[in-house]
Amino acid sequence: MGVAVVLVSGGMDSCVTAAMAVREFEPAFLHVNYGQRTERRELQAFHAIADRYGVGRRMVISLEHLAQIGGSSLTDPALPVSPARLDATGIPTSYVPFRNANLLAAAVSWAEVLGARAVFIGAVEEDSSGYPDCRREFYDAFNVLIERGTKPDARITVHTPVIRMTKELIVRTGIDLGAPLDLTWSCYKNDDIACGQCDSCALRLRAFQRAGVEDPLPYVQRPSYV
Amino acid sequence: MGVAVVLVSGGMDSCVTAAMAVREFEPAFLHVNYGQRTERRELQAFHAIADRYGVGRRMVISLEHLAQIGGSSLTDPALPVSPARLDATGIPTSYVPFRNANLLAAAVSWAEVLGARAVFIGAVEEDSSGYPDCRREFYDAFNVLIERGTKPDARITVHTPVIRMTKELIVRTGIDLGAPLDLTWSCYKNDDIACGQCDSCALRLRAFQRAGVEDPLPYVQRPSYV
Repeated sequence: MGVAVVLVSGGMDSCVTAAMAVREFEPAFLHVNYGQRTERRELQAFHAIADRYGVGRRMVISLEHLAQIGGSSLTDPALPVSPARLDATGIPTSYVPFRNANLLAAAVSWAEVLGARAVFIGAVEEDSSGYPDCRREFYDAFNVLIERGTKPDARITVHTPVIRMTKELIVRTGIDLGAPLDLTWSCYKNDDIACGQCDSCALRLRAFQRAGVEDPLPYVQRPSYV
Repeated sequence: MGVAVVLVSGGMDSCVTAAMAVREFEPAFLHVNYGQRTERRELQAFHAIADRYGVGRRMVISLEHLAQIGGSSLTDPALPVSPARLDATGIPTSYVPFRNANLLAAAVSWAEVLGARAVFIGAVEEDSSGYPDCRREFYDAFNVLIERGTKPDARITVHTPVIRMTKELIVRTGIDLGAPLDLTWSCYKNDDIACGQCDSCALRLRAFQRAGVEDPLPYVQRPSYV
């Protein structure tokens, strides 16, 4: 059984991705703080998920420069978190420029030292029409980069098992695999009771509503998004 | 005149790269600490070079996870810095896995926020037969990654103006352009008087010796490498 580095943000998508990874690989969980508003809450979710899966090999790293650089409502207190507009096109204000490249670069560095064969990331195309670094073609390019930028015997590839899934299917898959969705955190705005109104809450609530399952998290309000 | 983010480590290659960048672009200097042994000395060199070029827009970021991850004599105190073996093949112990991908990812994030058109990095193929992330094909792949992972209007490309140069030519070019080589720091081991024996010192001394120019830095010893 090979080793895989799994990027676990503490959200639903990465939790389901982890649930898929642990079936095939010996997991090493990686969490990245980058000055996002709900950093502490996400870290708590990360450790809870790692505990549930009995993952001893975990690393928490800090990419504070993503907040230092700014440009996103996710990390910049001066920019408001927009209410959800699920039908909107274009790049949302929560976009952190080239974020996933920073995350993957760190994950691949660790993977190379560990002798891992895979890096898992829970990127989803559906909820990220406007996030250029969530598209499949981005990960295809990243795999070429890894091949050229690591030792010849490294052979690490990025796995994105939920990238083509709808959020509804991610919920269903998580439930099928017994993923601990109750331990995850998705809200971009609050860290105690989810707001129910930011992009991330709206996408999550809609997914549970479409799947016909009650989201186990507490919400300030649960608008209907279906 | 467009803006360019220039990665300036404080070493000779990035100093000459900066000297080339400032002729065409309005520079924003980026320095990365990643737990390398001579971190403070390199940071001092960075600010000295930025001062010399009158660069106000500068950012210093910390990628401490590269030390946390380990695997390199450059950041891991438990691994000795090897004496130079300029004729050796294979990957040197100072290799930090996938380091330049981490550096470039941060640089591109900043470039996207600044609206910059270019990122400059002083990678050199010659001294890095064993560093997979110093080869041209790695940067070609990175440019594809940027195109796919940034906003459609971003159009940032990585420039590696010294990548095909010999170290001797880098010294000559630096002198031609009036680059402040006296302000740079290259030694991997010491931060006051260069050791003259690590890979980086040996490559630098050989370059100056071949160019027939006295290296302005102080050395513990100056072996002949020509």
